[in-house]
Amino acid sequence: MTLAEKIGQLVQLTPGFFGSEYGDVITGPELNIDMESVDVWQTGSVLNLSGKATLDKLQTTYLEKSRLKIPLLFMNDMIYGYKNVFPIPLALAGSHDNQLLESIGAFLAQEAAADGVHVVFTLMLDVVRDPRWGRVMESPGEDVHTVAAYGQALVTGLQGNLSRDAKIDMRHVAACIKHYAAYGAVEAGREYTAADLSQFSLLNTYLPGYLAAVEAGVKLVMTAFTVVNGMPDSVDNWLLSEVLRKQAAFNGVVISDYNALNELITMGYSADDLAAAKAALTAGVDVDMMATIFANGLTKLVHQGAIDTTLIDQAVLRVLSLKNDLGLFENPYRGFDNTANEEEFTQLSQRAAVESSVLLKNTTAGLPLAEDSKIALVGPFAASPLTLGLWGSINADFSKVKTLKAALENGHHQFTYAKGYKMYDAHVVGTEMGGQFAKAEAEDLQTEAELAAEALAIAASADKIVLTIGEDFLQSGEAASKTNLHLAPAQVTLIKELHALGKPMIGIIYSGRPLILTDVEPYFDALLLVWFPGTNGGTAITDMLFGKATPSGKLAMSWPRSVGQIPIHYDSLPTGRPLTVHNANERFVSKYIDSPNTPLYPFGHGLTYGQDNITCEVTQVTYDQVSATILIQCAVTSETIAIEDVLQVYLQQPKQATVVLPTQKLVATKRLKQQKQHDVSIAIPLSALAYYDNQGSYHLDGGTYTFNVGLSSANILAHATVNVPK
Amino acid sequence: MTLAEKIGQLVQLTPGFFGSEYGDVITGPELNIDMESVDVWQTGSVLNLSGKATLDKLQTTYLEKSRLKIPLLFMNDMIYGYKNVFPIPLALAGSHDNQLLESIGAFLAQEAAADGVHVVFTLMLDVVRDPRWGRVMESPGEDVHTVAAYGQALVTGLQGNLSRDAKIDMRHVAACIKHYAAYGAVEAGREYTAADLSQFSLLNTYLPGYLAAVEAGVKLVMTAFTVVNGMPDSVDNWLLSEVLRKQAAFNGVVISDYNALNELITMGYSADDLAAAKAALTAGVDVDMMATIFANGLTKLVHQGAIDTTLIDQAVLRVLSLKNDLGLFENPYRGFDNTANEEEFTQLSQRAAVESSVLLKNTTAGLPLAEDSKIALVGPFAASPLTLGLWGSINADFSKVKTLKAALENGHHQFTYAKGYKMYDAHVVGTEMGGQFAKAEAEDLQTEAELAAEALAIAASADKIVLTIGEDFLQSGEAASKTNLHLAPAQVTLIKELHALGKPMIGIIYSGRPLILTDVEPYFDALLLVWFPGTNGGTAITDMLFGKATPSGKLAMSWPRSVGQIPIHYDSLPTGRPLTVHNANERFVSKYIDSPNTPLYPFGHGLTYGQDNITCEVTQVTYDQVSATILIQCAVTSETIAIEDVLQVYLQQPKQATVVLPTQKLVATKRLKQQKQHDVSIAIPLSALAYYDNQGSYHLDGGTYTFNVGLSSANILAHATVNVPK
Repeated sequence: MTLAEKIGQLVQLTPGFFGSEYGDVITGPELNIDMESVDVWQTGSVLNLSGKATLDKLQTTYLEKSRLKIPLLFMNDMIYGYKNVFPIPLALAGSHDNQLLESIGAFLAQEAAADGVHVVFTLMLDVVRDPRWGRVMESPGEDVHTVAAYGQALVTGLQGNLSRDAKIDMRHVAACIKHYAAYGAVEAGREYTAADLSQFSLLNTYLPGYLAAVEAGVKLVMTAFTVVNGMPDSVDNWLLSEVLRKQAAFNGVVISDYNALNELITMGYSADDLAAAKAALTAGVDVDMMATIFANGLTKLVHQGAIDTTLIDQAVLRVLSLKNDLGLFENPYRGFDNTANEEEFTQLSQRAAVESSVLLKNTTAGLPLAEDSKIALVGPFAASPLTLGLWGSINADFSKVKTLKAALENGHHQFTYAKGYKMYDAHVVGTEMGGQFAKAEAEDLQTEAELAAEALAIAASADKIVLTIGEDFLQSGEAASKTNLHLAPAQVTLIKELHALGKPMIGIIYSGRPLILTDVEPYFDALLLVWFPGTNGGTAITDMLFGKATPSGKLAMSWPRSVGQIPIHYDSLPTGRPLTVHNANERFVSKYIDSPNTPLYPFGHGLTYGQDNITCEVTQVTYDQVSATILIQCAVTSETIAIEDVLQVYLQQPKQATVVLPTQKLVATKRLKQQKQHDVSIAIPLSALAYYDNQGSYHLDGGTYTFNVGLSSANILAHATVNVPK
Repeated sequence: MTLAEKIGQLVQLTPGFFGSEYGDVITGPELNIDMESVDVWQTGSVLNLSGKATLDKLQTTYLEKSRLKIPLLFMNDMIYGYKNVFPIPLALAGSHDNQLLESIGAFLAQEAAADGVHVVFTLMLDVVRDPRWGRVMESPGEDVHTVAAYGQALVTGLQGNLSRDAKIDMRHVAACIKHYAAYGAVEAGREYTAADLSQFSLLNTYLPGYLAAVEAGVKLVMTAFTVVNGMPDSVDNWLLSEVLRKQAAFNGVVISDYNALNELITMGYSADDLAAAKAALTAGVDVDMMATIFANGLTKLVHQGAIDTTLIDQAVLRVLSLKNDLGLFENPYRGFDNTANEEEFTQLSQRAAVESSVLLKNTTAGLPLAEDSKIALVGPFAASPLTLGLWGSINADFSKVKTLKAALENGHHQFTYAKGYKMYDAHVVGTEMGGQFAKAEAEDLQTEAELAAEALAIAASADKIVLTIGEDFLQSGEAASKTNLHLAPAQVTLIKELHALGKPMIGIIYSGRPLILTDVEPYFDALLLVWFPGTNGGTAITDMLFGKATPSGKLAMSWPRSVGQIPIHYDSLPTGRPLTVHNANERFVSKYIDSPNTPLYPFGHGLTYGQDNITCEVTQVTYDQVSATILIQCAVTSETIAIEDVLQVYLQQPKQATVVLPTQKLVATKRLKQQKQHDVSIAIPLSALAYYDNQGSYHLDGGTYTFNVGLSSANILAHATVNVPK
């Protein structure tokens, strides 16, 4: 291969570079790419081209024009859906159903593969503890175990159940995890700010999720835009070379995020393309996504003798290996005829919505509703297809979206609908994208008062009020950081006015992030959080409303009482002056003087129909030295109702470790389905007890460990103790 | 010395141990101290005993009963005042007047020395970026340079201008800095939680302030309660042995904070007294304050052969050296006859209040007031002596406090006073301490409506309204973390009602922390922040109201627009997608979609009378290799008014460093006083350009540096560029 041919493999272009039939004229970050250095017919990969025929056509042209005829690699931003959309990742992670998640991964892979796509950027594994950050919707949440389990299940589903170096079959695609590392810790929850974390926190909390996906054989890792501890992630030798390549033995492709390498110059780290290219390649980046750095910088660096050319060879080899793993050399038109099983998607997505919806609150006047209830259905979320979340909205077939209103009609339920308030706040959204969708609202000439009056009128003649509330999809996702997480004033006003009617009121919450509900929560008899529930959300919600299914998702992020509690997470480190029931009136304890320490809804919370009746008894705890596994056996019973819930096992703080460890830490979950009695066996690998100290050393201490078994981080039903030999 | 005698030197007791005439019967953390191991007549130091005669009496008894007759060391929590109280540290730091700060330190030292005290815990040098934390009032704020300069000035004032190992004369005392390290970074601003910071952030931001005080010769360092990066500070070898002892060559006494060593057990780090004692002594703690650990653990450790006894000898030697430095072996009754110059205090404290009060907002209808203004003075802060802040209230002589009301009466100004609302919110404060002071309020039987009506009535017949607002002193300080930083609802209501009268309204803010004023700020024609202004605050405020003095303090912490912006600080790291005037309507930039990024009032902000007329021209920039100093010379002029302001020099982000450095960084300040024209010469040591990279290596790069010269971090008047050779 010539140098230009090698460098071409490390450059990713947008479709427009290959001709106007593939996309827009070149604008944006790659506008200044040096096309004398980079021949498009030598480049390695293409971002976000879709449609099997189009991809095949480009591949054909490319193979004709390219000297070496190494097939192009097509990569795509398919996150939690394509045409068919699932609930958002923050919701899905709360299902704790690995089999479901694998099935979703497999479905996504089939949709992508059928479209001719080779690599999907599905997997955000950023631990998040700050709901101000809009991108929490794409994350599996605040907890290490949940993030790791979610990532492993999705990698398995997307790629097929692979050994690390195995080939990916035609029904699967290569997965890319992102954003390595710690993008979720941006300062003050503001998009694209820097993060500051100790090595202790990186090793114990932020990195394990990514590394679990590497262990599961993921083929690509994307670097984050983020500056962590003064160092841009894309040039961080410790993160990329030491931890990822060396310690975790990752031998796949590292790709930078969209324009991240150009931003090395913007943020003042690199002087120019050459410096940025050298820093990124040296640290371990193989492919430059949507920036001019590798294209413009590498050739010059080589000609100046300013870079070790074996680094280029190494990166090229990784890209070629990925193409080989995908079978592209055998079949550049890889993919398959997707006899897309709509029925499979319907069942899978409805199940996903049920298993990821979180029943935050319930009372006897709440859920489920009687079949013959006369319902006032209020709020624009109930009737809008725009409830798929930001990434889900990009390629979605909106005509297929089952709204709650449509599903109720379909089920022949007795209800009347009123919009009640406007969904979009054009002022808050304030972007081009917001403008586009806010247009319909702007053209709605009804005033807020008129909308509210309509809602009050239909509610007056109903038995029950089902009020949909939340945040429109443009208020979360990338670049939707917010300082205020309360519901919009019009919603709060309407809640109070409807409540004044004295009728049972059910709230259905659509949101991409934890919201502050402290002030409005008392007005509801039940609160069902459906997140952005996907294409078939409405049908699933209807099933849950009438008790055909029980919502059984768990919160993967704590829901704070106020923005003033952020960051809040269940696995905080202990304090020397803990707040207890005995010292609550003393001053010098760890508390706020104007708020409880606890969140409004804790991590792992999620009621189910009949949860109050569930009991759990630990029947046996064993430690098996050979398999290095702790086995906890429990009898879980309910006299009144079939159990559908998620049993959660938390490790209590191991004391007298080399460092201070969290007060509790989730180590295992077990989804229980539709039986009155379960003999549950939960395996906990010994590695779940391990930790890194503040010097970066790995420890696995012998001693007595206590596990708390329950239905949320704040609802513990039983304890299990085991002795692990030193 | 016997082992017991050695260990005794490392134990600090409360006065009650020496007999009921010195204090309460023993309760609290030292209740379980093993008095067989520790003979009180062998202990080394006493906490918070006051009164020269009492101290002398105890010293005499001790010397009689003690075999070795090593004098007792008396240590005291004197923070920013004793009987006479200065403005709080967060205010004082904003004066940027080193000579003033030295004088205050010297005055405090004299008060302490006259009282027989040897060591004062005056100096909190915790960098703080989270106003939810109540203890920000004790800190010099968010900025490294400000914290370091404040610490050095106070150490010099308290100890006298010493070389590191020099003796302290009788008019001075030994100073202790605290809380080493990073107590100010507690998670979510909640008191006593753990902090998580990178080494990059510790070395560049959090540690330099403490280490500057070490450089200035401070005699003691107190460890923090805090767990930083999984490690309790009091047992952190890296912080104590590596950085403090080895790198900074600190040879003084390290003392743990109140009960901190017992808390090692509470937080699960140490199994028992022995383990805690070993960990703390090994890391570098010399004296155990108010815990049972050294007293109960060290003897047993020695008998078990489980500790290196040279560690004990080393610690004892440090304590004895401190006693020697204080001249206690020559004169155990050290101190002097303080012919306390009340006039000196009056002048110093008034000057301090003026130089630390921050004029947040001003308009033509605002300040200063005409001498003959008819004023409605409203709000309980105007008439209450309880405006000294938490630490200032402990020993204060409240009868000496000049309230604003008293000062206006004294100046024969035309005003009427109404309380307007209740100062204390017993519910919010909710502590014993709160209960005590809230009692008077509880006994005030007037309703909020009656109080407001009175205020509106007097305002109706006045020319101008001077409304005092803020937070009572129990809502900041230790263990007063809050999630909501808005003014109390009764204050907000009254502000709106008074504003409706259409008269010029001046707000005087009393507070120990940055508050959220976004909603109320528009109602005021001027806003003067006086913090907790000290014993003579009222007189100083009166001078400022009528233009006899110009407020000239600068904010040492940013004042956010909302709690949702926290943490916010002026020296943030750059982002790859900065918000600019050109891209403000684009989505994918670093911003909130519901708030500006900027704070309401930025770091360094503080108007002065006539600030608008000030111009600054850089006349010369030189770099002197011999003295390793950059000299910036400016001509600062005002045609209309004598300048009283603080010129601030910010280093612009040095690009292409080994890491990404802050967008701006304060490196020097210069207080300008009462001239129309100043030829200012500002020296910047080359070390101000240095930084640590993310591996902990120190760098000082050659290159071109730009400095921005202005009157706040957001009000830059001129630029200076200099080339520093490699």
